[in-house]
Amino acid sequence: MPILVVGSVVLDTIRSPHGEAHGSLGGSAIYFAGTASYYTPVRIVAAVGEDFPEEGRRFLRDRAVDTTGLEVLPGRTFEYEAEYGSNLNDRKSIRTCLNVFEHFHPVLPESCREGGVVFLGNIHPSLQLEVLDQVRRPVHVAADTMNYWIHGAREGVDALLRRIDTIFLNDSEVTELTGETNLLRAARRAAELGPRNVIVKKGEHGAFLLRGKELFAVPAYPLETVKDPTGGGDAFAGGVLGYLAGEGSFSDDAYRVALLHGTAAASFVVEEFGPRGLYGLPAERLRERVDRLRSMMALPESQGVSGPFPL
Amino acid sequence: MPILVVGSVVLDTIRSPHGEAHGSLGGSAIYFAGTASYYTPVRIVAAVGEDFPEEGRRFLRDRAVDTTGLEVLPGRTFEYEAEYGSNLNDRKSIRTCLNVFEHFHPVLPESCREGGVVFLGNIHPSLQLEVLDQVRRPVHVAADTMNYWIHGAREGVDALLRRIDTIFLNDSEVTELTGETNLLRAARRAAELGPRNVIVKKGEHGAFLLRGKELFAVPAYPLETVKDPTGGGDAFAGGVLGYLAGEGSFSDDAYRVALLHGTAAASFVVEEFGPRGLYGLPAERLRERVDRLRSMMALPESQGVSGPFPL
Repeated sequence: MPILVVGSVVLDTIRSPHGEAHGSLGGSAIYFAGTASYYTPVRIVAAVGEDFPEEGRRFLRDRAVDTTGLEVLPGRTFEYEAEYGSNLNDRKSIRTCLNVFEHFHPVLPESCREGGVVFLGNIHPSLQLEVLDQVRRPVHVAADTMNYWIHGAREGVDALLRRIDTIFLNDSEVTELTGETNLLRAARRAAELGPRNVIVKKGEHGAFLLRGKELFAVPAYPLETVKDPTGGGDAFAGGVLGYLAGEGSFSDDAYRVALLHGTAAASFVVEEFGPRGLYGLPAERLRERVDRLRSMMALPESQGVSGPFPL
Repeated sequence: MPILVVGSVVLDTIRSPHGEAHGSLGGSAIYFAGTASYYTPVRIVAAVGEDFPEEGRRFLRDRAVDTTGLEVLPGRTFEYEAEYGSNLNDRKSIRTCLNVFEHFHPVLPESCREGGVVFLGNIHPSLQLEVLDQVRRPVHVAADTMNYWIHGAREGVDALLRRIDTIFLNDSEVTELTGETNLLRAARRAAELGPRNVIVKKGEHGAFLLRGKELFAVPAYPLETVKDPTGGGDAFAGGVLGYLAGEGSFSDDAYRVALLHGTAAASFVVEEFGPRGLYGLPAERLRERVDRLRSMMALPESQGVSGPFPL
């Protein structure tokens, strides 16, 4: 089934110990659409300025993303500048210019209003809710957010959490949301706020899903070089929800496999600056990384009598 | 087959945000023997002072550990004092008094010299090698070390690495050993120094094994409370090697399952101060946690046609 994604489309300037990129294509909706489109038709809802580069249009066209909901508004595209320190875990925001996004209120084209999977990417929670209000009978709703909104728009985040099936949070976000530094406790508290599925992203340490009492853990894809973590979380969400929507299933088993696809998808993004790791990426290579992750987690059947014994 | 462990036996004073313990039983040989003994007969080689408490003897007796190689020397048992900060990741050493360990040169009783699995716990690498020299035809040799020796006795560590099958290192140790902050690169470099199996322990983020080109990752056991991480790494090694020795197999598959046993074993230790989490612990509870870890990693069979597709 199709996925509708609302989120930011940004021109990013990123410096990391491995180099830098100026005015590079970015934003949650771009990374999400870039990976989810490997699995199912994707419709994007976002705003760009008149300066939006041909690179961005080509990327979305190459990935067959439906851009009916991509509004071109007078002014400049959202600009963001940040810098990563040597361990790539800490991002320092240097400049955030919302530009055309500042007063954007998405009005969904009729073709985007019906059913399917909805991903509410990281934007103001009130905008996320505005979009959700316009969708009739969504099958499955997921959202991402960030510390900025948890801290500054908590009521909106709480209202959002009550209306979604799945929340994606990184370790610092789930801690800020719940006040718990232990990630298991934090995920349990987050689930109490509404969503049935809480997915905690731990970067190089992988991710886990809490779903009722079920817990599923997946390692990160093993990479020798990470150049730019930007967009990794959104690419991960794109792989997860893309797989689920493609399967048309949201069962325990489907979610478990989906986390492998999210992990593999994110690995291509963080290996390069911006979404370049996805440019021309064959589906086959994504599949290979999913298989590698499977082999990294594979266990022989339990053998019955082996294991610890009483003295 | 039996395991021989050489390592420290210590009286620990530990403060963590969850409380404190004074003069509590500790040391690498204690934690290792405590968990490995759930799987196979364990022989301990270490030195204690005349003040070694009855608690320690009882623990080893309850776990049926062979203490023929535990020498009682005139003087006091090794004493160590440390403090954990709020996130439990950083341990600050406050006081280290080697006492009877300072001039200890283990002479193995005849019953400990033949074959089996050998674990060289964290002590000076020259002592680790002295012990290894006394064992005839060991089947499988593993070792642990720490930044202190990597930094201060590098030649000894290098000599050790050339003679063992398996090295256990935490993330900061593998980085110090190789100069690589990327853990995959670091593990590959460590393998080049000798050991076929490199096991990197990441605390709350689990562990991974690099074995030739095979990579296997395991999450940490999910705990809501970690009171005292002391001994977790040695308990982990005890579970891993105990399982392997009990099975009498060092195959890929055996190693994969062994990492689950190590993870489960360590979880009982870090939940409580000192080795108390192992006191009276039934084998059945260890087995339950291994099963829980299995379910956290379980994936349905690959379904063939699902997954990413070419546009």
